[in-house]
Amino acid sequence: MSKQEDTTETKEAQEAQAVSKQFSMDKDALRLALVTAQFALRATRQQSPKNTNKPTGLLVLVNGMEQAGKGTAVTQLRQWVDPRLLKVEATIGDCPLEYQPIWQVHTKALPRHGDVMVYFGNWYADLLYNVMRMATQEDEDNDVKKSEDKHNKKLKNKTLPIGQWQDYLKKELTKLQAFEQDLAANQTKLLKCWFRVDIDTLQARLNDDEVEPEFLYQIDWKSKQVVETFNEVATALLRQQNDWIIIDGADKSQAATHFCHEVLQAMQTALASSKEASSKAESEKSKKMTKFEPVKIPQTLINIDDSEIDKDKYHKALADKQARLAELLRARQGRHVVFAFEGMDAAGKGGAIKRLVAPLDPREYQIYNIGAPMLYELQHPYLWRFWTKLPNEQTDRISRIAIFDRTWYGRVLVERIEGLATDNKWQRAYDEINRFEADLVAAGTIVIKYWLAIDKKEQLERFEAREDTPHKQFKLTDDDWRNRDKWSDYVQSAADMLARTNTKDAPWAIIATNEKRQARLDVLDHAIDQLSTALSNIES
Amino acid sequence: MSKQEDTTETKEAQEAQAVSKQFSMDKDALRLALVTAQFALRATRQQSPKNTNKPTGLLVLVNGMEQAGKGTAVTQLRQWVDPRLLKVEATIGDCPLEYQPIWQVHTKALPRHGDVMVYFGNWYADLLYNVMRMATQEDEDNDVKKSEDKHNKKLKNKTLPIGQWQDYLKKELTKLQAFEQDLAANQTKLLKCWFRVDIDTLQARLNDDEVEPEFLYQIDWKSKQVVETFNEVATALLRQQNDWIIIDGADKSQAATHFCHEVLQAMQTALASSKEASSKAESEKSKKMTKFEPVKIPQTLINIDDSEIDKDKYHKALADKQARLAELLRARQGRHVVFAFEGMDAAGKGGAIKRLVAPLDPREYQIYNIGAPMLYELQHPYLWRFWTKLPNEQTDRISRIAIFDRTWYGRVLVERIEGLATDNKWQRAYDEINRFEADLVAAGTIVIKYWLAIDKKEQLERFEAREDTPHKQFKLTDDDWRNRDKWSDYVQSAADMLARTNTKDAPWAIIATNEKRQARLDVLDHAIDQLSTALSNIES
Repeated sequence: MSKQEDTTETKEAQEAQAVSKQFSMDKDALRLALVTAQFALRATRQQSPKNTNKPTGLLVLVNGMEQAGKGTAVTQLRQWVDPRLLKVEATIGDCPLEYQPIWQVHTKALPRHGDVMVYFGNWYADLLYNVMRMATQEDEDNDVKKSEDKHNKKLKNKTLPIGQWQDYLKKELTKLQAFEQDLAANQTKLLKCWFRVDIDTLQARLNDDEVEPEFLYQIDWKSKQVVETFNEVATALLRQQNDWIIIDGADKSQAATHFCHEVLQAMQTALASSKEASSKAESEKSKKMTKFEPVKIPQTLINIDDSEIDKDKYHKALADKQARLAELLRARQGRHVVFAFEGMDAAGKGGAIKRLVAPLDPREYQIYNIGAPMLYELQHPYLWRFWTKLPNEQTDRISRIAIFDRTWYGRVLVERIEGLATDNKWQRAYDEINRFEADLVAAGTIVIKYWLAIDKKEQLERFEAREDTPHKQFKLTDDDWRNRDKWSDYVQSAADMLARTNTKDAPWAIIATNEKRQARLDVLDHAIDQLSTALSNIES
Repeated sequence: MSKQEDTTETKEAQEAQAVSKQFSMDKDALRLALVTAQFALRATRQQSPKNTNKPTGLLVLVNGMEQAGKGTAVTQLRQWVDPRLLKVEATIGDCPLEYQPIWQVHTKALPRHGDVMVYFGNWYADLLYNVMRMATQEDEDNDVKKSEDKHNKKLKNKTLPIGQWQDYLKKELTKLQAFEQDLAANQTKLLKCWFRVDIDTLQARLNDDEVEPEFLYQIDWKSKQVVETFNEVATALLRQQNDWIIIDGADKSQAATHFCHEVLQAMQTALASSKEASSKAESEKSKKMTKFEPVKIPQTLINIDDSEIDKDKYHKALADKQARLAELLRARQGRHVVFAFEGMDAAGKGGAIKRLVAPLDPREYQIYNIGAPMLYELQHPYLWRFWTKLPNEQTDRISRIAIFDRTWYGRVLVERIEGLATDNKWQRAYDEINRFEADLVAAGTIVIKYWLAIDKKEQLERFEAREDTPHKQFKLTDDDWRNRDKWSDYVQSAADMLARTNTKDAPWAIIATNEKRQARLDVLDHAIDQLSTALSNIES
């Protein structure tokens, strides 16, 4: 225990110093600096051509204890900035949703670039809700098993060993830290503030008649034992994550001033990072990066070798496989399934998807046809527009299968080739995507990915056929011909993508699609394989 | 009863005719027509300058009975169109959320213009859920009052007289019909399909082992008595709303073909309406409209007559009123509150809002700073971007107070003056807005509206002061000077707006704001008045 306390004390000492330095700024100067930074951040969003700054936003996470001055601090901030440009969201902590990474449900609330947002609770509230349930249940469980609480039941279903909250906390914190780093790398900068008070102050405040309890993490803050457990959890959390600013809420007014100073500094840091954006700085950075090594193109992408299949045989096999797939999907026990389709134009994504969904009830799935992002999507981290389309337990009552026709891999395909993303951005994206998919799989989502491979000659034939077929003409655009001119770039990009993102959690299936019928069967086979494996894993 | 049946039979006869006519189209022709219409609708969204079509979408509501072939029909449609461009959403019916119009929770799912969306369940499922609870509870209530069901309790709290489902249904249907007309007028066209089968077929299908029940409206479809009650409710619904297409689900395959034909026709009608958009047609239409009569400008907008107030007195009064306001807001028993601020530039909206929120916890409210709409917002009905910002019981756990700094009245102010909306659009908007606010108020939301009045001389002084004050310079833009040049247009538009939208449900307060301090007190006074009235109404 002594080691923990040491760490904390050192931290406090450092802060006290930092704070006293900042506090030299008087109130009026602070207000002006806050408003100035606020408008400067907003201005990074502007699209005028001369603006070379990266659009940048700031997300302020506010967490910690009940009655530790959080509300006062944010009220103070809102008084000192232009309140209309400061978004505030709040959650109190709830059992994390099944089959979703803890952060997913919160992504809809994330600030647009150019915005500053204060987010009380956030994903840490859900995490703490869960950990506190585990940590305070240990003793109870030794007595009688009266787990009528549906949340507890949920936890048990998720095979989390009750009582081992330390392991659970550690694992989740690691994932959240990675998620937050990806946010920051995508210009959603973070400031994490942890408010705390000692137990006596807390009890005194809770006993004040005027107080309005927040029910944070849904725990009983009046119980000393619970608060002690909470402090134990908090210590473990703060020890693992060293990017929290600790704010002492003993004096609420001082805490508020401290908080406002931290927000100012975070805004200024965010602004500075938005200015590193000039193409010169960017290219300097690229030079410093390890040189990107393209992989050798595998034969499966060049020699598309697939066998023809007799029409009757095809229809019989199709019906069988569709029935098997439908059966597996229905036996998935509520788990989410995400299908990702990539491939050259005219490789048959649409046809394959059609056969995939044919046996399903139309209420069960969503198909997302991914094109160029809209402006408001560009004003968020790259993956945001996919995070917010994933099946969501909270809002999708029935539809928990998502099919993406083109996907987040656009970053390392079209955006790389067309120069829509800087080298730094698309090269970084391989890891971001791997982390994203790993998080999904860790939460129980089944991720099934396809690259539909076609050769250049077959594509030409299909383009020409489309031109001649009335109900297929819509499918052919000028873009398709332009992309065709960059055939070899696409093949190289696909090869790099397949090599770098073929993970154990979410392996790629490369499907030869010169022969459409066989290709459709192969797509179904891979889905059946992946589902069988995923579902047998959970049973064992 | 006989009259009802007559109506229904006549309807069926008409349809049988219509259907047989359409069914002459063979399968391939139907598929081609569907895909063609689908892509043509999508093309209305394109922003290319030569495109004079109105962006138009189609929302297909799918309702009716359980096991009546709805799933089969939509599966068929999805096979015949490009499935990637057909969105499908589904709900099964739930207790409508408190303090929100029934449609509100569904607005996030509405299709963008250019999309076709099939929506199973939708707002009618919630309505039917409620009505069925009321209709099947009559008998129970005569026995013992064992209302442990939390939904029943909710209904009772809402002072709905149990058993009088007819009145409730009628009222809600009227509101929904108006809402749907506003959707259609704003280019979200509707097709409403009602699937049904006779009781024997239903029972036979439910007894099939293969069947997967939908739990539609959360009622017991195996009970003959419940189904009879449902049929009674359905008859009342269909009698009141004559825009439903009745689809007989006795033969699922025929029902599917019928459905696809109806969707095709609705897409073609939507397309035709999108083409009426040439400026010529538009101006023809305007000519036919009753000529718009501007109102006489009231003195309160011209002679801004407000008294100065001593600084000490002001601070004392401010603190008192803020305390009273906070007290009232806390006593509002969960009801939502919507503040709407309009007024000339520099009239003090920001300052007034700042004083309004000062006594509130920052978690309780959201401030929305309304500017020009984004592209995806323009691809929805005009009011959509406000519908989706209203407090929402489902997602806003804590924040149920929304403050709009500029509002939906932009349609009849800036959009009218700058020609951003056609005459037809902004003149129609008065009624649309009145209906919107009336719906909110009927659901228990408290709507508080302000026009902050300033005179032209005072505005100039404030503009100049802003130029000179470092932390206020951001507030002044070129737009502000341009708007100032159109001062008299704004005054006239404000006068028209105030005359046409000053309803009993949501009256305007015109606040003289030449003297800022008094203005801020007046803003608080009006909020206190409105809240006191609204809250005393509910108690009595």
